[in-house]
Amino acid sequence: MFIGIYGFGSIGRLLARVALERGHEIIGVVDIDPNIVGRDVGEILGLGEKLGIEVSTDPYTLTGSEVILHATGSYLDKVYDQIIASIDSGADVVSTCETLAYPYYRYPILARKINERAIDRNVSVIGTGINPGFLLDTLAIVLAAPFNIVNSIRAIRSIDAAKRRESFRKKIGIGEDIERVREMLRRGEITGHVGYAESVMLIADKAGINLTKVIEGQEPIKAEADVESSGIRVGRGLCKGIKGFGAGYIGDREIIRVEFYAYVGAEEFEEISISGRDYSIRWRSSGTPGDMGTAAIVLSIAENIVNYGPGLLTMADIIPFRPYIKVS
Amino acid sequence: MFIGIYGFGSIGRLLARVALERGHEIIGVVDIDPNIVGRDVGEILGLGEKLGIEVSTDPYTLTGSEVILHATGSYLDKVYDQIIASIDSGADVVSTCETLAYPYYRYPILARKINERAIDRNVSVIGTGINPGFLLDTLAIVLAAPFNIVNSIRAIRSIDAAKRRESFRKKIGIGEDIERVREMLRRGEITGHVGYAESVMLIADKAGINLTKVIEGQEPIKAEADVESSGIRVGRGLCKGIKGFGAGYIGDREIIRVEFYAYVGAEEFEEISISGRDYSIRWRSSGTPGDMGTAAIVLSIAENIVNYGPGLLTMADIIPFRPYIKVS
Repeated sequence: MFIGIYGFGSIGRLLARVALERGHEIIGVVDIDPNIVGRDVGEILGLGEKLGIEVSTDPYTLTGSEVILHATGSYLDKVYDQIIASIDSGADVVSTCETLAYPYYRYPILARKINERAIDRNVSVIGTGINPGFLLDTLAIVLAAPFNIVNSIRAIRSIDAAKRRESFRKKIGIGEDIERVREMLRRGEITGHVGYAESVMLIADKAGINLTKVIEGQEPIKAEADVESSGIRVGRGLCKGIKGFGAGYIGDREIIRVEFYAYVGAEEFEEISISGRDYSIRWRSSGTPGDMGTAAIVLSIAENIVNYGPGLLTMADIIPFRPYIKVS
Repeated sequence: MFIGIYGFGSIGRLLARVALERGHEIIGVVDIDPNIVGRDVGEILGLGEKLGIEVSTDPYTLTGSEVILHATGSYLDKVYDQIIASIDSGADVVSTCETLAYPYYRYPILARKINERAIDRNVSVIGTGINPGFLLDTLAIVLAAPFNIVNSIRAIRSIDAAKRRESFRKKIGIGEDIERVREMLRRGEITGHVGYAESVMLIADKAGINLTKVIEGQEPIKAEADVESSGIRVGRGLCKGIKGFGAGYIGDREIIRVEFYAYVGAEEFEEISISGRDYSIRWRSSGTPGDMGTAAIVLSIAENIVNYGPGLLTMADIIPFRPYIKVS
């Protein structure tokens, strides 16, 4: 496929690597970072040879892409113009923008506008990634398939923040004063994880249920003792990471709950529990790398998106299973 | 949806129950068993009221169904005429026929004919169920999504045969003499599990790799001591169940392996391990009920099949992830 990459930070570069490894051709890369604009993509990736493609600030250089892989930011209002420019280039768009995973929740008006534009240009747009987009939502939908009647779905992801890239650790306030992290989260100076409600909504949307309440919460975790993992050390009393959740209710019944733990020294696993009327099943993993997982999923969806109709899609739209959720 | 049921044995009845619970309308039921032909479906299901639908031997009574749920047999050559009759009624067809889960393997000519007929009648046909169709193939494909490069996939399902219906226990020779079971399996008098190669092929098809060899094997397991589980007792030396496998190779490298254990007293679990170039992930479950799982998956696919184009489909066709398998 002819692929354009919009955003050439750590995820964008990983997307480029995976795309090349899978035999796709990169025809343009867009970023605004003055340190890389004008430089050859092969050189930035350290491929040992030039690709003949230079990083440009101009989205117009992506014209001719069959799919644009978009990885610049978490909030749809901030990246909306980029998505529109990508659509206007005539390419399908697969984005890691977390809030685009279920944009009808936080940005219903932008979602409608994107959908109209995509239909108008006969292209598909979808937000995905490892989380939101896969582990706590799409996979939970798939794992609910062997249930006649589902009562509740609970999905947990736990990662050792020490094993993640520095920009991620910064985003969750590692090594900072606890109160300061709380304050930075409140002010939006750091984001922590974005996408709890999106995961909840993806599941609810696919199930066709109308949640009466969706809540989210996120807070720093204090190191009760000095901790160290993979060479990252956090002193006692400081922030060693975050924990957060999203939950969807019908009345006072919690139907869907997703949780995310990211702290230094955390055990790495996912655990998805489906409670049904007739039985329950719990699945547990040995842990899933985040960035590489996101890159692989984005490429996999990019390779399949041509099979789906035009417009703004969600992962729920392209999964052939529908959980039949019923409050017991 | 208006649903027709073709085959009203234990699975067909479960399909009917689940369909009714999900609010669908059953408009016809076909079976050849003289004990139930002519009887009211609601009465057979023990619903406490008549449904006004009698079991008929005539597939023509299914006309008007939007989807026909087909559950009569494991081998496509034996049920081919039933599938064609279902297609000719103008309905989409979702079948539990194990070899229809990937019919291009064992019945390539029948598969082509079904595909042509389905396209001609503008309907979709798909084979699915808990296994083959979900646990050891579709789910393995989904769980491989977070991998850039997959080296191998291994999926295991283990069930306690004592907890399954009697017809299943009979199919795997429980309580019989070991040599006799071996002989019955060889002669096809009992089938054991059907679908090992189908699961392997579903994964390979989705990955787009060309396996150079696919093998299957199945054998009875001897009770080394008296065993009992859920009231089912097997004396020492007799057959307590079966174990089997399917494996797909490229050259001398085993790329895909599925295993199935079904014996009295077995631990219940699934385990799916994906080995990638960069990392490996193992998922393990607390076990999945087979019959109810099959019914739920068939209904879920039936509710979604309208989204897919006409023709003979496989589960691989409708999953938006493509494992990128590369021999290391």
